[in-house]
Amino acid sequence: MTVRERIAELRVEMEKNDVEAFIVYSADPHMSEYLPKEWKERTWISGFTGSAGFVVILKEKAGLWTDGRYFTQAPIELKDSGIDLFKDGVVGTPNYIDWIISETSENAKIAVNSLATSISNWEELENKLQQNDRNLIDLPLLKKVWKERGSQAKNPVFVHPLEKAGESVDDKLAKIRAKMKEDKITSHIISSLDDVAWTLNLRGSDVKCNPVFLGYIFLTLTDAFLFVDQEKLTAEAKESMKNKNVVLKDYDSFFDFLNNIENERILIAPNCNQSVLRAIEDKNSVKIGAVPGHLMKAIKNDTELKGFRSAMIKDGVAMVKFLHWLTHNVGNEPMTEYSIGEKLESFRAEQKDFVGVSFDSILGFKGNGAIIHYKAPKEGSANVTKESSLLIDSGGQYLEGTTDITRTLPLGKVSDEFKKNYTLVLKGHIQLSMAKFPRGTRGVQLDTLARLPLWEEGQDFNHGTGHGVGSFMNVHEGPQNIRKDMNPQELIPGMVLSNEPGYYVENEYGIRIENLIAVRLWKTTEWNDFYEFETLTICPISKKAIVKEMLTEAEVQWLNNYHKFCDEKLSPHLEEEVKEWFNEMVEEI
Amino acid sequence: MTVRERIAELRVEMEKNDVEAFIVYSADPHMSEYLPKEWKERTWISGFTGSAGFVVILKEKAGLWTDGRYFTQAPIELKDSGIDLFKDGVVGTPNYIDWIISETSENAKIAVNSLATSISNWEELENKLQQNDRNLIDLPLLKKVWKERGSQAKNPVFVHPLEKAGESVDDKLAKIRAKMKEDKITSHIISSLDDVAWTLNLRGSDVKCNPVFLGYIFLTLTDAFLFVDQEKLTAEAKESMKNKNVVLKDYDSFFDFLNNIENERILIAPNCNQSVLRAIEDKNSVKIGAVPGHLMKAIKNDTELKGFRSAMIKDGVAMVKFLHWLTHNVGNEPMTEYSIGEKLESFRAEQKDFVGVSFDSILGFKGNGAIIHYKAPKEGSANVTKESSLLIDSGGQYLEGTTDITRTLPLGKVSDEFKKNYTLVLKGHIQLSMAKFPRGTRGVQLDTLARLPLWEEGQDFNHGTGHGVGSFMNVHEGPQNIRKDMNPQELIPGMVLSNEPGYYVENEYGIRIENLIAVRLWKTTEWNDFYEFETLTICPISKKAIVKEMLTEAEVQWLNNYHKFCDEKLSPHLEEEVKEWFNEMVEEI
Repeated sequence: MTVRERIAELRVEMEKNDVEAFIVYSADPHMSEYLPKEWKERTWISGFTGSAGFVVILKEKAGLWTDGRYFTQAPIELKDSGIDLFKDGVVGTPNYIDWIISETSENAKIAVNSLATSISNWEELENKLQQNDRNLIDLPLLKKVWKERGSQAKNPVFVHPLEKAGESVDDKLAKIRAKMKEDKITSHIISSLDDVAWTLNLRGSDVKCNPVFLGYIFLTLTDAFLFVDQEKLTAEAKESMKNKNVVLKDYDSFFDFLNNIENERILIAPNCNQSVLRAIEDKNSVKIGAVPGHLMKAIKNDTELKGFRSAMIKDGVAMVKFLHWLTHNVGNEPMTEYSIGEKLESFRAEQKDFVGVSFDSILGFKGNGAIIHYKAPKEGSANVTKESSLLIDSGGQYLEGTTDITRTLPLGKVSDEFKKNYTLVLKGHIQLSMAKFPRGTRGVQLDTLARLPLWEEGQDFNHGTGHGVGSFMNVHEGPQNIRKDMNPQELIPGMVLSNEPGYYVENEYGIRIENLIAVRLWKTTEWNDFYEFETLTICPISKKAIVKEMLTEAEVQWLNNYHKFCDEKLSPHLEEEVKEWFNEMVEEI
Repeated sequence: MTVRERIAELRVEMEKNDVEAFIVYSADPHMSEYLPKEWKERTWISGFTGSAGFVVILKEKAGLWTDGRYFTQAPIELKDSGIDLFKDGVVGTPNYIDWIISETSENAKIAVNSLATSISNWEELENKLQQNDRNLIDLPLLKKVWKERGSQAKNPVFVHPLEKAGESVDDKLAKIRAKMKEDKITSHIISSLDDVAWTLNLRGSDVKCNPVFLGYIFLTLTDAFLFVDQEKLTAEAKESMKNKNVVLKDYDSFFDFLNNIENERILIAPNCNQSVLRAIEDKNSVKIGAVPGHLMKAIKNDTELKGFRSAMIKDGVAMVKFLHWLTHNVGNEPMTEYSIGEKLESFRAEQKDFVGVSFDSILGFKGNGAIIHYKAPKEGSANVTKESSLLIDSGGQYLEGTTDITRTLPLGKVSDEFKKNYTLVLKGHIQLSMAKFPRGTRGVQLDTLARLPLWEEGQDFNHGTGHGVGSFMNVHEGPQNIRKDMNPQELIPGMVLSNEPGYYVENEYGIRIENLIAVRLWKTTEWNDFYEFETLTICPISKKAIVKEMLTEAEVQWLNNYHKFCDEKLSPHLEEEVKEWFNEMVEEI
């Protein structure tokens, strides 16, 4: 069934129900970024596989909105689909709601599946549509069109032990309940899968790359209920929940349970699904806001930070072995973007307690490096040869931590322009790494440091500089980040973020240099507590394309110190064969 | 009557009316930063003269909340008042509403004067008080206590001619009305005095330092009404309003007029006073948001920018003459902070079309320099001698533009620590001056550049880095600024801002270096439009305390170029006597 045929079938259903526009968000009932396969509705209806973006189907037109990371990939995947690309964040791109209004008739019905629509999306949509005499309705039309989704996975849900989590479930629940009391909340719903898993020190694998499982928590000041496919819990996990007085209930009984709740003051997050809000809003007082555990999860405790540091050594060893293998074999044997991705994963798999990759590896050779979230296809990915450059963005899930690293490697001769841009990206990376900043500073205040060297050349990159990273958990997590956007969340010691400026020339090459960094106290002065970043990632940064004269003394110093740190941490774990090459990699410039 | 006696009288009125807390904001009905004398209620009841801060009077306690600019000044002025200082922005300082709730009984009445309370303040107060079973009421109790306010001034309201305003009233009204239509608004109220004056190309002097006059505009898609004391308009101003079809009405008839408005869709700004909202909300549909002219006013047209550049030459000449006089006479003749302020004003007054100072000059010798908004008293200000340093923050209103400049001058020997801090402040000033940034950048993204050199030493300053500046208009204007705060307003070519990092050591010295800068297009690349700052202020920056080794090459270059620019612009206007000294000031380092 082609995408065109799928859309045609959906339009038949729209016609039957008198619906003029149907919106398909990239979402599941838990607003996950990576979706369980049965919820990949946006991909199914459009063919677009990116991690962000949504589709609007009208009677005759259709549009996909996505952001700068996918401006190269989307047109390729949308070819022949009849879907137009709308570039989010580009001047002149209409807001999708405005577009719907302009393309539909007065009093038109606009439909979404409220189970896969967040409260905040629904509210914005409904307000704007109502003001313009359009009606928003909940109608999961895709259910009737996409019938063969396969059944839900039965992946085990297992205990994330205290020696890795660093905080017991009892302590977490006590802290959350204290916050509930402070905010005069009598119960709250946890619907984000990573928040669910973090709260109960459980992990699963219902979603690719993310160690989470489908579930909701309903928490009162005295009771806790986990709605989950109970068969999936290991005996240990069941025992643990029993000991913590967490009552297990069937995932499918969640909405029946909600229908019987009344007279509570319930907190739910703005990214909870609209169906939950509808189920509780009439008989309870509902407060919409961040759930307490969301911020608690982002502030890693010492045990979790220790876990990160341990995982980084393993990940660094795997990366170094891979880079050594690549450097010595490229040009001598056939390899493709896809095959070297497999090779990279095999090096990670050698490491103890490796669970799997933390996201789909991005191996972009030459122009493919400019596709920010490129995924090399199994069949027909580019041959990698001894020329141009390769961008490698990858990461692993280890039982004690999560990694995410990008290195850009010249494989052959690169142009002076490439070298200049590589050095600009490196300068931005280092400037952010070296930042000292007072308590209260938000990511948006530091984002500029990573971009300024590019801005000074009239250049920029179309993605955020840093995202939060979980502890054996989702590789993207909130609430903190380092972006141009106005995120009010302050950076707090214990938060882990990525530092990943880049630069991209379409059809030519992509450059990105990424380490994970943790916020820590630098020193307390009469002015304030001042913070700095601890660099967690341990892997040499290629020096081949650096234009040394463009670096300041402090930047050179940082790079040399970083390589000394890599040497100290990784050398003891490297075989002789690799060492000679490695020693060169970490030599001073 | 002492402050204690005033508060005692207010408490009698509170008691009579069963009011447990009375809040006195620093405000007039137009939410002006600088107040007409009859509206200086906060100063009258507390003795605190700062430009920001508000007072809460309870039955037995009283508190003043103010920000970092006044942490040194406030305790001095509050001495013996019985009012406690609450330091805004300092960890542990309670929010004033929380404090009121904790200090009053259930169902207590909390009163304000709604004419001097903004809609946004009222809304926040009312919500939080209601949630905690307290009641907010409008009761202008101070009217009964402070009876001798003097009568309203009768200052002339005169035309700001097209050759200085650069845009006709007709064109401004047409642009505003186009925006009203776009936003489906049928009428709107302009209540900020600078917005009123800008819209009608009028100026006045009802407020010290600000060329504005008391008035409201009520604007429909076809009609315009100016509520003003009509006697104050010059014949030319009256004629101009008649030609523009602006109907004059008495200031005091405004609320009667509002009471008769119905069935309109009215836009008012969140800083409109609550009495206005109350007058219109029942019979109309009210939208609260920025009025269209507010942003238009901030984006200066070419005529206004030309005016700034012209005013800067005059202001620079006055500053140079003053600095020359000061340098040559300090230590030789008696002088005080107050007397040199008068001297500085006299140099400005020699300049053509000088109207008056744009704010109370800040002349802070030694430790007084650390009082961020210090105002030297007429009697008993410090003697200025040939030692330590002097901070001079001053500005002028000229018919074609407004200036605001700070220089810090070592008058005698200064410590190495002073020199280091002076250089850190200068580095921040230069880094911000040199910034290149893409369209869409907000002030918060650039604020860090001015602070980073200090942050790297665990230091900071407790005020914003930059505020908007009007064109022969208020020296502080919105919506743009450069601060740590999350102001969503993007910087747009034509906007004028200050660049004024500082550093302060209590009781020892203050350092601040301030120029005005204008956003302008730098270049358009395939990535975006990129912007930069044009430095408007023309006056040498003292080199005496610079530690050259701490500056980068680019920073040295910037300073030398800036001094070359000062030389070119000011030399032709300086007498021989001053020139020799001036030549040294602008010599390369």
